[in-house]
Amino acid sequence: MAFHINGRRLASEIEQHLAAVIQRHQNRAGRPPGLAVLRIGDDPASGVYVSNKEKACERIGISRHGAHISKDITLEEMLHVIHSMNEDPLIDAILLQLPLPPSLDPGILLEAISPEKDADGLHTLNLGRLLKGEPGPRSCTPSGIMVLLANNKIPLEGQHAVVIGRSTLVGKPMALMLQSANATVTMAHSHTIDLSSITRRADILVVAAGSPQLIGARHVKPNAVVIDVGIHRVPIDEITENGSKSYLCGDVNSNELEEIASALTPVPGGVGPMTVAMLLTNTVMNWGNRCTLDNPLEDLVSF
Amino acid sequence: MAFHINGRRLASEIEQHLAAVIQRHQNRAGRPPGLAVLRIGDDPASGVYVSNKEKACERIGISRHGAHISKDITLEEMLHVIHSMNEDPLIDAILLQLPLPPSLDPGILLEAISPEKDADGLHTLNLGRLLKGEPGPRSCTPSGIMVLLANNKIPLEGQHAVVIGRSTLVGKPMALMLQSANATVTMAHSHTIDLSSITRRADILVVAAGSPQLIGARHVKPNAVVIDVGIHRVPIDEITENGSKSYLCGDVNSNELEEIASALTPVPGGVGPMTVAMLLTNTVMNWGNRCTLDNPLEDLVSF
Repeated sequence: MAFHINGRRLASEIEQHLAAVIQRHQNRAGRPPGLAVLRIGDDPASGVYVSNKEKACERIGISRHGAHISKDITLEEMLHVIHSMNEDPLIDAILLQLPLPPSLDPGILLEAISPEKDADGLHTLNLGRLLKGEPGPRSCTPSGIMVLLANNKIPLEGQHAVVIGRSTLVGKPMALMLQSANATVTMAHSHTIDLSSITRRADILVVAAGSPQLIGARHVKPNAVVIDVGIHRVPIDEITENGSKSYLCGDVNSNELEEIASALTPVPGGVGPMTVAMLLTNTVMNWGNRCTLDNPLEDLVSF
Repeated sequence: MAFHINGRRLASEIEQHLAAVIQRHQNRAGRPPGLAVLRIGDDPASGVYVSNKEKACERIGISRHGAHISKDITLEEMLHVIHSMNEDPLIDAILLQLPLPPSLDPGILLEAISPEKDADGLHTLNLGRLLKGEPGPRSCTPSGIMVLLANNKIPLEGQHAVVIGRSTLVGKPMALMLQSANATVTMAHSHTIDLSSITRRADILVVAAGSPQLIGARHVKPNAVVIDVGIHRVPIDEITENGSKSYLCGDVNSNELEEIASALTPVPGGVGPMTVAMLLTNTVMNWGNRCTLDNPLEDLVSF
């Protein structure tokens, strides 16, 4: 049986660690860390995500400076909101909850956020810092995976890692992070020919393909570690015992891998919870930098 | 016999193309493109490189705004020089010739150059743009290789490319450019275990390892395309017919590959000449953007 990597437990441990770090340094800093979550319009899924992030802030002592903004706001008005948050000394990190209403260009707004207040490592300058191996806020999903791998003592040095998917959000930063940990990294994607011949060489396989249960037994070599970034709600014809008409699954057919992989992340409860934990980590890290604290997170983050 | 990819000829064709583009658009732009090459101190190799770049500018009609600066200049003075060049409307691209005297931090000075006047695509913001697939000045050596591959009609779509080396200058941008051309890309490096088992899977092998003749017959599969980024001057015991006590070689033992590879780049005359051609290309592209010309290089650059 494959070992199930528990992202929920690790995320909760990271929250406890961050809460202790905030507690310990708050006096010297003169204030708690501050995160602004900007929600524009009434996308219901965004509402749930924003609420989860705000609750997590509350649990660990990050002060919230969010705003729920009407979908009718203009680009100029929205830029003004971001600029004043860039100037606000109490705000260490700004998160623009996507998707935006179609009238607003996410690229322009994301670039308007000060790179030093970037909450999710998506500012172009911070992606460049990642490429150069310089410190900076890191994309939350891949950095969460790096912490999951490290915490579960999965060796990366000299190992062959294969990343499926090449998004700016996950695939590309993931490949660079694995490489900087001295793995040999192959980047596969929708144009890859004979995918299984590529993935079967992976000691570590990260699947961020966005395709339900794309990866099965024939793609994975014995004892590989498989990280599943996908999350999909799939409808089912018959209503299950608990009355549900759908179920959650990832990009990996995990049933097929139980007897093949040495370890895998479940969906839900694997990669997902780590993303919020890394958003909080970026916020606390930005706070440490802005208040010139002495590496409060040195023991946690190293990628 | 492997086909020898001629970088010298293509570089010369690109110069002719750029000269024609400058000629055609100069009236509308109101001025020729301008490149500033900053040479600090008296490193003799740098002298040769700078002179080559300046001669190339002269050949195609780029005006030169270079300066040869004393090695005793302070960081503050040097930042002042760069800031006034950032403001100078006649300068479209600024190149800081490396290495610098030990008293000057290259990182600080490179970041001081305006990203829109970056001559060699090394500004952190431009590396981020590369990662995101957004337009911007690109690193000259990997972009030169992309043009070499395209010009020689070497297909990349769905092909397996292996890049050896992970520098910010070559390896990492190379991998991202090959990926954006829809190749499946493996990034290998000094920590890669069993290198030949990785490289033998390459349809296209780019070697930027910095190690003379590292790659030989056993690393390459039949009919692979091999791109050699290395250039090394190797001393020899006996004086050759032409009186030389050394010879030039790359990271690849090209003699061993003549009967195996389908194509390879010679050293010298392969990748090297393309680097200067792409510096000129970046300069003309920045000029086009700054003078709001309508994509004068659309037909040349697509990576």
